[in-house]
Amino acid sequence: MTTTHDHATTDGRALTPDGPDGPEGSAADRAAGHPDGREAGPAVTRVAAAYARLREVDRPEVWITVVDEAAALAAAREVDRRAAAGEDLPLHGTALAVKDNIDVRGLPTTAACPSFASVPGASATAVQRLVDAGCVVIGKTNLDQFATGLVGTRSPYGAVRHASLPDRVSGGSSSGSAVAVALGIVDVALGTDTAGSGRVPAALHGIVGIKSTIGLVPVTGVVPACRSYDVVTTFTRDVRLGVTATAVMAGPDGTDPTARTWPVDARAALRERPVVGLPTSEGLAALQPAWRGAFESVRGRLAAIGAEVVEVDIRPMLDAARLLYDGAIVAERFAAVGAHIEAGGPGLDPTVAAIILGGKDIPAARYVQDRETLERARVATLAAMAGVDLLVLPTTTEHPTLAAVAAEPVEINRRMGTFTNFVNLLDLAAVAVPAGEADGGPFGISVISRAFDDASALDLAERFVAGGEVGLAPGGRGDGGPRFGPPVRRLAVFGAHLRGQPLNGQLQDLGARYVGPTRTSDAYRLVALPTTPPKPGLVRVAPGEGAPVEGEVWEVTDGALGRFLADLPAPMTLGQVELEDGGSVVGFGCSHRAAEQGADITHLRSWRAYLEVSASGKEVLALD
Amino acid sequence: MTTTHDHATTDGRALTPDGPDGPEGSAADRAAGHPDGREAGPAVTRVAAAYARLREVDRPEVWITVVDEAAALAAAREVDRRAAAGEDLPLHGTALAVKDNIDVRGLPTTAACPSFASVPGASATAVQRLVDAGCVVIGKTNLDQFATGLVGTRSPYGAVRHASLPDRVSGGSSSGSAVAVALGIVDVALGTDTAGSGRVPAALHGIVGIKSTIGLVPVTGVVPACRSYDVVTTFTRDVRLGVTATAVMAGPDGTDPTARTWPVDARAALRERPVVGLPTSEGLAALQPAWRGAFESVRGRLAAIGAEVVEVDIRPMLDAARLLYDGAIVAERFAAVGAHIEAGGPGLDPTVAAIILGGKDIPAARYVQDRETLERARVATLAAMAGVDLLVLPTTTEHPTLAAVAAEPVEINRRMGTFTNFVNLLDLAAVAVPAGEADGGPFGISVISRAFDDASALDLAERFVAGGEVGLAPGGRGDGGPRFGPPVRRLAVFGAHLRGQPLNGQLQDLGARYVGPTRTSDAYRLVALPTTPPKPGLVRVAPGEGAPVEGEVWEVTDGALGRFLADLPAPMTLGQVELEDGGSVVGFGCSHRAAEQGADITHLRSWRAYLEVSASGKEVLALD
Repeated sequence: MTTTHDHATTDGRALTPDGPDGPEGSAADRAAGHPDGREAGPAVTRVAAAYARLREVDRPEVWITVVDEAAALAAAREVDRRAAAGEDLPLHGTALAVKDNIDVRGLPTTAACPSFASVPGASATAVQRLVDAGCVVIGKTNLDQFATGLVGTRSPYGAVRHASLPDRVSGGSSSGSAVAVALGIVDVALGTDTAGSGRVPAALHGIVGIKSTIGLVPVTGVVPACRSYDVVTTFTRDVRLGVTATAVMAGPDGTDPTARTWPVDARAALRERPVVGLPTSEGLAALQPAWRGAFESVRGRLAAIGAEVVEVDIRPMLDAARLLYDGAIVAERFAAVGAHIEAGGPGLDPTVAAIILGGKDIPAARYVQDRETLERARVATLAAMAGVDLLVLPTTTEHPTLAAVAAEPVEINRRMGTFTNFVNLLDLAAVAVPAGEADGGPFGISVISRAFDDASALDLAERFVAGGEVGLAPGGRGDGGPRFGPPVRRLAVFGAHLRGQPLNGQLQDLGARYVGPTRTSDAYRLVALPTTPPKPGLVRVAPGEGAPVEGEVWEVTDGALGRFLADLPAPMTLGQVELEDGGSVVGFGCSHRAAEQGADITHLRSWRAYLEVSASGKEVLALD
Repeated sequence: MTTTHDHATTDGRALTPDGPDGPEGSAADRAAGHPDGREAGPAVTRVAAAYARLREVDRPEVWITVVDEAAALAAAREVDRRAAAGEDLPLHGTALAVKDNIDVRGLPTTAACPSFASVPGASATAVQRLVDAGCVVIGKTNLDQFATGLVGTRSPYGAVRHASLPDRVSGGSSSGSAVAVALGIVDVALGTDTAGSGRVPAALHGIVGIKSTIGLVPVTGVVPACRSYDVVTTFTRDVRLGVTATAVMAGPDGTDPTARTWPVDARAALRERPVVGLPTSEGLAALQPAWRGAFESVRGRLAAIGAEVVEVDIRPMLDAARLLYDGAIVAERFAAVGAHIEAGGPGLDPTVAAIILGGKDIPAARYVQDRETLERARVATLAAMAGVDLLVLPTTTEHPTLAAVAAEPVEINRRMGTFTNFVNLLDLAAVAVPAGEADGGPFGISVISRAFDDASALDLAERFVAGGEVGLAPGGRGDGGPRFGPPVRRLAVFGAHLRGQPLNGQLQDLGARYVGPTRTSDAYRLVALPTTPPKPGLVRVAPGEGAPVEGEVWEVTDGALGRFLADLPAPMTLGQVELEDGGSVVGFGCSHRAAEQGADITHLRSWRAYLEVSASGKEVLALD
């Protein structure tokens, strides 16, 4: 058994996490870890490569604990076995790193404070769900102690250098997780984010950081920073894998008292032509000059993917953010770990300790007043976002050197949080994505949405990175793996609600998500109704007496579906429609009487074909 | 101009509230106040009676400020004029009293502390909406100072005696408001409720107190007690008027940062046979022996109105309540008015001042920890309520004399909050209703629901008071005035979903509310479909070629409607159905093909008639 980092074993504990099946399963895993001549499955191959890469890059400060390689390979073999047995594993063979303020059963949780270490008896809900979905934990990563910082240098386990610019900081507090992804050691790394810890290091590394709406991913088994504002985040190299991992982690676990559920009318997708707010130049005052040009180019890239860009005054949001460290909210940090810091164990980072002890003597009444100020700022923010689907901001202000941060440990850190600090405080969601280069390194932006509009932010993030309308195209984000969004129902449309048709905007207004084309069974006839705008009527007949009719499947929430039905004018109806594949979804029909008055166009097999023929002036009726 | 209470004018300010139309409108009101020989409208008659009753009962300690009678009559005249001009005024001519911690434009707000008084330039949102709906403000009522207390004795404006048992307390903190309703001076009085202030005085007077879910009624213009937990409440003599007033007050005002909106899948009504949880005997330990029997009889009364009664261990809820005064939450009181109390003006109640000053030196970290404890208790409460629609508890523990409370000002008050304190802390809603007599006075219970299930609590409260199924009968709560519940849509049903039919439970599970019978236009034919269970199909035909078909209208939220549609099996469909009155609602249809396979039963004009004929073995088909 080897570890790449000596201090990971200073407390003498074994660095073998229990398997998902408890101690017995774990023992079985260890047995399975021995070479037995079987061909390696995808998980084993991926995990072996992770360890090879980990050794190759030789960046010990990234890790606080590395899982024993044989144990990880045994876990990988078990994952491959489950997949071979037919289990649906959306993250089969994904190499996972976990920030060391998040519990992994059997590995110490330090929060980057050696004296704080203890070995949890259960994994955090988020970790357990990823493992259940096929991930294999490679190790626990270094962080700014107690997740307090945005620089990645505040740790007795070493300042985490940037992955490719070794004189610069990695960003924090989820420093090791970001670098582990950026260096290609793991595919997914978990961070936590209270003030930007899941976004700033992503920006500095040109990778993706997803900070979902507070409460959607359980924080059970996570060391709190500010418990009202903490979110478990993902680092990945592309948006889609982050979406899948976030979706796997999400959902109430019955334990987390801060859990929240999706409103049943949350948006499932971004509209085709979103309105995106960019800060006015005054709002960008903190952005370092060398990065201004990079951010200027974002406007054109947004326009190129169909967004309408408007300016929003974000200064009130930036002002609210000052409450995170300058206000009484820091008392939440003291409530979480203050007693440990007061006890004065070894290995405390002096900057972190000073910040957290600053929360000790704050009177509760001041905290209550600051919370009220934040609530009022939240209301003002929602008002400022009226008519705007999303905000796009630079993720951070600059990329300092390790030396600069060492010389000025608080002020630079504070500035770097300018565009991230307010997000959690004002109950917004954000996705950090790469946006080119500047100042000799990566440049990144954040797509920011209202609470529970994560799906919109993720759609824009994916379209921005891809430079196109990924979210609306077949083969887009939703076609593989679980999606991260509200629970949805399928709805089949066949006429005026199809993409590009006059009533499609109704679906987009309701936050519906395009899934793809579909066809009915051959038990339907299609008629052209004398409505305004012209609509088709789908009429159920005996099997074989109709034809497969082309349509589209969309996904909508229950709330959106109810509103859609309530606003649907006669003679249209909704009910189950049988599809060519034998399944059945809610779809359009029309009243008896209307169908009788329509012209049969079944032979054309699609409304679009009818419109085409109709526009060409040809005869549309079939010759029976 | 006269006032009934001298100290109401000690600050020399005029006691004439501005009218709703600003100073100009107010001047016009005053002019209109002069007798002009016109016949008195309902508002004028009611307001004149209110003043006559106010003088008759001669209870000056009920009021802190009484509106000048001529001004109130002028306001009433204006209300009558608006009604005569065709305005829809759901509270036309309702005499209103307002607890003196809620702003009424032009009248001082004292919170029962003379040195705190100031005259607001605008009415509280809740008051303004009531005035807009036709209420006339008669005066501002006495309260336990800064709404801190449940006894009604903690005020320099005098201890408020009980309405009919003058040696006993009125209950508080909304003491004057409850007595003003109980004595018949006003129809609606506003209270506020943080720990039970809107419920305890209702229980002691045999009237109704509605404490809605936190955030639904704006608190803009209300002096905070604990800003996280304060609710504006109503006192009325019957449930329905309280529901109307609460509905009028509810809805975001764009200003209140604590505002919340109805989830789009909240229940609109209680199910027909609800499961009601009663406390185990251990949970009732604080109830005074003389009241035990009264509460025992509640079980039988609940069963008599169709409820299934189960026992719930409420002790964890009672434990959580201790945090309200013994914990750090009292810091919210200090945050609100601590500076004023520290300044030490005259007229401070010593008990109140001591409680609020106790919130001064509480560290923020302890407040954060107490909030976490409460969040965990909330999760545990929801778990304890699994499978239970509502809880029913005694509202308070006892009815002490003024002398007893004077001798022991804190301990009795604390005990009286046993069954109310936890409600707001754990984010529940409650309605206090009379439940007979005990110990020589009124006895009251509280119906307690989950957050946003106010409609269920109000339905049970109304059924309990009426002794029957009011909520499900035509002519029930929903048939007059605005309802207090989530936004709903109308849904017409014609067959298996009718009341008493096999699928009606689906509507009840979705929280649908029965509105009443309906009939289609004569453009429908009714067919009996060969489905299981048997269902009718409604088929649209040309006007006059069908017959009016009998059905029922229900109300459902968008979320419930979407879920209902998504789960609706073929061949049923939903779409607009034309009603006999010319209107149109979402209602049932069926697929073309199914209708063709059904038997025409239009001549029977209702599914119930068909079932009856069918069961009798008679021929159901019409002879054409």
